[in-house]
Amino acid sequence: MRLALEEARAAADAGEVPVGAVLVRDGQVLARAGNAPRRLRDPTAHAEMRVIREAAAKLGVERLEECDLWVTLEPCAMCAGAIAHARVRRLYYGAADPKGGGVEHGARVFAQPTCHHRPEVYAGLGEREAAELLRGFFAGRR
Amino acid sequence: MRLALEEARAAADAGEVPVGAVLVRDGQVLARAGNAPRRLRDPTAHAEMRVIREAAAKLGVERLEECDLWVTLEPCAMCAGAIAHARVRRLYYGAADPKGGGVEHGARVFAQPTCHHRPEVYAGLGEREAAELLRGFFAGRR
Repeated sequence: MRLALEEARAAADAGEVPVGAVLVRDGQVLARAGNAPRRLRDPTAHAEMRVIREAAAKLGVERLEECDLWVTLEPCAMCAGAIAHARVRRLYYGAADPKGGGVEHGARVFAQPTCHHRPEVYAGLGEREAAELLRGFFAGRR
Repeated sequence: MRLALEEARAAADAGEVPVGAVLVRDGQVLARAGNAPRRLRDPTAHAEMRVIREAAAKLGVERLEECDLWVTLEPCAMCAGAIAHARVRRLYYGAADPKGGGVEHGARVFAQPTCHHRPEVYAGLGEREAAELLRGFFAGRR
């Protein structure tokens, strides 16, 4: 989660909403990335999507079955859907996101009968730092 | 929708679940693609994601505000989330997907208070052909 928070800080420095993610297998970091839809001109370039795509490309597989995803903020519906499609084993996230989250809020993707894979979910790790980064970012933009 | 169905057929020929999508602005096709997670080794490479990413890259923008998306099947939660993030104006889809859909089933992404943009949605266009393609594909795999 320390690496994910670093990625979130780097995203903030680049003018992006500060969210960072890391994809891990067997204790090894396969991919790390920050949120970058503005910089990449890609509305799907959330941190989670970037590490899933990078890790799948690196491993040459469509499914990341033995992999765990660490992310500083509760994933949105898009990212939760991607996590399910990728068969990610465990999801660890920091701050909850009542306004845009799709795990414990809103779409609650993993709780739906249409969801074909549910990762183990661990919330609240590094929550304080992750939330402070976001607050600082949005306060600075007002 | 004719073009989207062509893309779905091409996906089936390539051994992918037959879903196709087209992204249109001002009557002009900006991007067309079929479902390709296996071929591309990318769990996020659904037809809708591919046309959204391609059109955004082509236009050099993060938001596709004047764009309409045509897809042969009801989008899943991931794709519905991406459609919302991309600010797609209108969504036209063919067959409903009770098992994996995220628009009128399951996550019902656009109906959530956590959804920050709702496209106009038109369902059932080219439904018969889209559903027949899927049935034929899955029957052939049994």
